Order: sequence, then C-alpha cells, then structure tokens
Amino acid sequence: MSDLGDKILLAHGSGGQASHQLVSELFLRYFANDWLEQLDDAAVLPMAVPQMADAHGPTRLAFTTDSYVVHPLFFPGGNIGKLAVCGTVNDLAMTGAQPLYLSAGFIIEEGFSVADLTRIVQSMAETAKAAGVHIVTGDTKVVDRGSADGLFINTAGVGLVPQGLHISGAAAQPGDAILLSGSIGDHGMTIMSQREGLRFASALESDCASLNGLVASMLDASTAIHALRDPTRGGLATTLNEIAGSSKVGIEIVEDEILVRDEVRGACEMLGLDPLYVANEGKLIAALPADQAEVVVSAMRGHEYGRQARIVGHATAEHPGRVVLKTSLGTRRILNMLTGEQLPRIC
Amino acid sequence: MSDLGDKILLAHGSGGQASHQLVSELFLRYFANDWLEQLDDAAVLPMAVPQMADAHGPTRLAFTTDSYVVHPLFFPGGNIGKLAVCGTVNDLAMTGAQPLYLSAGFIIEEGFSVADLTRIVQSMAETAKAAGVHIVTGDTKVVDRGSADGLFINTAGVGLVPQGLHISGAAAQPGDAILLSGSIGDHGMTIMSQREGLRFASALESDCASLNGLVASMLDASTAIHALRDPTRGGLATTLNEIAGSSKVGIEIVEDEILVRDEVRGACEMLGLDPLYVANEGKLIAALPADQAEVVVSAMRGHEYGRQARIVGHATAEHPGRVVLKTSLGTRRILNMLTGEQLPRIC
Repeated sequence: MSDLGDKILLAHGSGGQASHQLVSELFLRYFANDWLEQLDDAAVLPMAVPQMADAHGPTRLAFTTDSYVVHPLFFPGGNIGKLAVCGTVNDLAMTGAQPLYLSAGFIIEEGFSVADLTRIVQSMAETAKAAGVHIVTGDTKVVDRGSADGLFINTAGVGLVPQGLHISGAAAQPGDAILLSGSIGDHGMTIMSQREGLRFASALESDCASLNGLVASMLDASTAIHALRDPTRGGLATTLNEIAGSSKVGIEIVEDEILVRDEVRGACEMLGLDPLYVANEGKLIAALPADQAEVVVSAMRGHEYGRQARIVGHATAEHPGRVVLKTSLGTRRILNMLTGEQLPRIC
Repeated sequence: MSDLGDKILLAHGSGGQASHQLVSELFLRYFANDWLEQLDDAAVLPMAVPQMADAHGPTRLAFTTDSYVVHPLFFPGGNIGKLAVCGTVNDLAMTGAQPLYLSAGFIIEEGFSVADLTRIVQSMAETAKAAGVHIVTGDTKVVDRGSADGLFINTAGVGLVPQGLHISGAAAQPGDAILLSGSIGDHGMTIMSQREGLRFASALESDCASLNGLVASMLDASTAIHALRDPTRGGLATTLNEIAGSSKVGIEIVEDEILVRDEVRGACEMLGLDPLYVANEGKLIAALPADQAEVVVSAMRGHEYGRQARIVGHATAEHPGRVVLKTSLGTRRILNMLTGEQLPRIC
C-alpha cells in the first residue's frame, strides 16, 4: 500500500507513470493472468471453439474497455459519444483485430438534458456505422444530482484477430522503423483550450477518428507489423515508452519528423505544455521491419487518416526501455513517461 | 423527445417502465440492430470464424455490460466489486453461455481511499476466481473531487454459447413452468437498510452471487430451458413482465410460492415497499416445458444457490404480455412493471 499512498490522485488516471504504478501494484497483483499482463490496448484471447479443427489453432478474440469522462462533453471535432466509439474501436484495431461489436454503458446525472443525450447517442450511432461496428448491448444508470458530472460513458468492444497476425506492444524489434500517422496534440489541446476559453480555440479541432480502416490498409500492404499503439493519455512520449518497456528495445525518434500543427504548438506554448505528452485520439504509432516501412507509409498516405504518415524513428538494441529524442538542435534527450497529471479528463 | 421529457430522471435508471421507455425511444432508435433489439441480459452474436466448417453453424458469443453505482460501496454480503463481477457473470449465464472473460473499468473520485480500492479489487479477484472467469482488460479514470461519488465500476463480459441452446427472454412458451431459485428482495433491502440505518439491518444480507454454476447444473438436467433471467433492478415483477412482453405470453404466479425472508418482509413493511419490486443479485427465473420442471428444480436444489428453488407459476396463452399474481387470499391481481424509481443506486 505504502507505494501507492493513501489516496487516489488525479495522476493515477493520467495514463503516465502513476497510472502504470496503480495497474502493476493493484490490478495486476490481484487479477493476475497472462492476458492482462500483456498490457496491450486490447486483450487477445483464445476461444476454444470445440467444433473447430485443431489444425487451425484457436479463434482469437480481441476484447477491450474504456470509460470516458471527458470534460466538456462537446468539443470541436467530436463529443464524448464519438470519442467512446472511436477509442474502443481503436484499441481493438491496435491488435490487428477486426472490430465487430461494442457495448455502451451510460452513467447519467439526474437532470441531464435529454436533447444533449440524444445528440451524443446519434453521434455514437453514426460513428459506429462509419467504423462498421454494431452497438449490441448496453446499460443505463442514473445517479442523484451531484453524484456524477453530467455523463460518463463506458464502451467495451470485441473483435476477431485474423490468423497469422501477432501484433503487440511487446513485439517491437531492434531495427524496426517507427511510423507515426500524423500530427500530434490536436485532441488534448482542443479540450484544454475549450476549458481555458483561449481566444484561438476556434482553430483547434480534435483528431478523434476510428482507425480500423487505416490499420486494414496497412495490413493489406504488409502483415509484418510488429506493434501498433494509439498515443492517447500521456501522449506520444508515454506510448513510445510503453512500447520500449514492453518490447525491451530502445527507441530513437527525430524531433523534426514529428508534426505539430501551428495552432497546437501555439496553445502548448501558451499553457506551458509539451506536445509530446498531449493526448491524441486519431493517431497511431507502428513498429515494423525497416524494409517494409516505405510500402506501409505509402498505404497509410492513401487513407484519409494517414495522409501525413511518416517514419519518425527506429528501434534499437541499445538502451532497452528508453526513448531518446534527437532534437532539432542536434542534441539528444531522454523522453520519460509522463509524470504527474497534465490534463485531467481529456478522454 | 417530448415523450421522454427534457431531463433525465432517476426513474430512467430504475429498470422499470421509464428505463424501458428510454431504451426504446433513444437507444434502440439510433443503435438499431437485431441483437440489441432482443433486449436480453447479454447479446448473443454470431462470430464468423472463417476456418470453421459451415456445417456447425457460426460460433455464438455472448456479450454484456453493466455499470455499478451502488451506494454504499460496502454492504453485508458484498461490495461494489463483488457485485460488478457477479452481475456480469449472471448476465452471460442467462443466455446459457459459459462466461469466460471480463473487463473492468474504474471511474474513481480523486481522494478515494487506496485501502478501500484494494479491498474492492481483492473481492473482484476472488469472485472472478470462484466463478471461473478471468479479468483480462481494464481501464482507470480519475475525476476531480466532487465529479463522482467515490467509485463507479463497469464490467463487460464475453462467453461462449454452447451449440444447440437457444435461451432468450423472448422464448417462453404457453404451458411453460416458471421457476424461481430462492427468496426475493434480499439485496435491495440490505442496501436500503444500510442507507436508512434501520436497527434490524444486521439480520439482512445481500444475496449477491455468481449463478453460472447453478445454470450449468440446470442445463445438465435439461437443455430444454426456454428463458432465463435474473430479477435485478425492478425486481421479480418487472422481470416477469419483460419475459411476458418479449415472449408474448401471459404469466401467472402464486404468491404463496414466493419466498420472502422475515427480515426482508419486515424491512419492506417498515419502508412501505413491495418485495416483488425489490432487486435481487443472486436469484434467477426460468421458463421451461412443464414436463422438465421437476428434474430441473431437483438439480437446482442440489446447488448452493438453488436450495430453495421451486415452481412459482406458469406461462399461458391468455393475456399475453400480462403478469397475474394469485394472492394468498385467493384473489388475482395484475402485476405491472415498476413505475417510477423505488430504490436508486441499488446496483
């Protein structure tokens, strides 16, 4: 207990170092099993289908969940409902799975606007349809006024992992190219600017999007992909640290290759934030053999959510577990995982 | 919109009439698909496993979710964590599925006690182990103080439905016997008495239990079971109305056959509540051919959670969609679905 402290802090939900500590010291300790310990965006599970020929191996199911507590509920580029569908679709897609079915659990504060709830549900339906998934089961709880802040949504999702794919945050190899699908920080700075009432907020828009189509295009180009992750809470730097730690490789990335939109950079500077640690909701990182990188980048650029895809670095056998940034000035600095809580309730 | 009103009310989370209205006018309208429309405790989904011989039909996956907002978090017989595992295991079991994997999503208020969270997580792990399921994926969000009431937990679950079973709340037939696995009202009155600080609270204990083992015993005795449901929010009367409505049968039950523990009856009388509408968390209702009823009741009585199982009524072709109670006095009264909100935050 002593390591976690007496009280849960906002930092325990940051996606950064304190979150990892909570997961490893509490959840992994008590729920201990091989699937959870992978700490991938979705668990990949064997389903022993009795009538299936053993020769083909078991069916593998991807299964994931996320709760959404974003504040405000509506923001440029999306809302909590769109986010709840995209986020869970993306967690499935990051295992290479074809997302199939979602659940939706609503926790609603008494007095919440039916018109707002309707807009959110409509948005979930549209987003699910566009991603090719069905919302097949759900639950609604209403809590008394003051016991929740408007609306929280949980989505869980299941999908099928095609035979032959073995994509995991723990599977990056030394020599792999590291790809990034586009600019970073858009979602986090959009939410932040809405809260702070920044003047230039109108230029910011969340990148919230379902990435399963992009992943399908990548897999059409090459099934040799080792690792996929979407850099949400904790941002690019934290997610790269997760891959480096799980895969026991070093990662080196080149600052000049990382796109940050001017509006995002401006908002970050104003608020004193580093875009490398700001959440994204429509971007992915891939690690794959360097000789496959060009063909996969090219496939990504043919997809609407990968137009700005590029190689941003590579994995190395040196400094395993560490992420190093080659800065624009030619210096090298270690990128640690996010510490503390940068932006609460970003997703 | 006009039918739902402008604001979400506590009654929309009651499990009764207002909940059904919200589901049909909002969620079914926008998420429209055949699986959701079944409104069973879990969706039963085809998984097209490409390499599986068509002759066997598709693999069928059961998938369900529930959020838990119970207050207080700890109560005699359980806590929010035990409830979150049992509830989702039970929703899977009510389709005849073998529950396999659970997700766990935590929404935690800043400042929550790490010691309490640990007790809850330990309890989830023990309950999952006893039920034979694994918690394989999860998520933690921390919200600022005052934005949630301590802790909410969402669990989703997946399981496999054995070939040949077609159990659904819509599958009860006229002539079916209606079975009930034990006494009613224990969970709801335990929670209520904790909140009201009733003197006799010490005699009350939640019936919170995982029923998948009981269902397996029943299916060992007979696979002819038509419908299974656990009467949680809205209680026995509401759940029977759901079965009657979905199956388009009438249901007649006999008051004298329905067990209510003395402490539960006493608490209900003191608070002016009808035990037929009070939530249970470890009981089930079954509808099955009358000629199979004795063998299934006998199997249930051999299981720790079915010792007091009995036939409590039957389904009829008359008055489809209606539930009628034959009272101890020999009169008949119509049991409607719960209207309004009897006990908020019971689960």
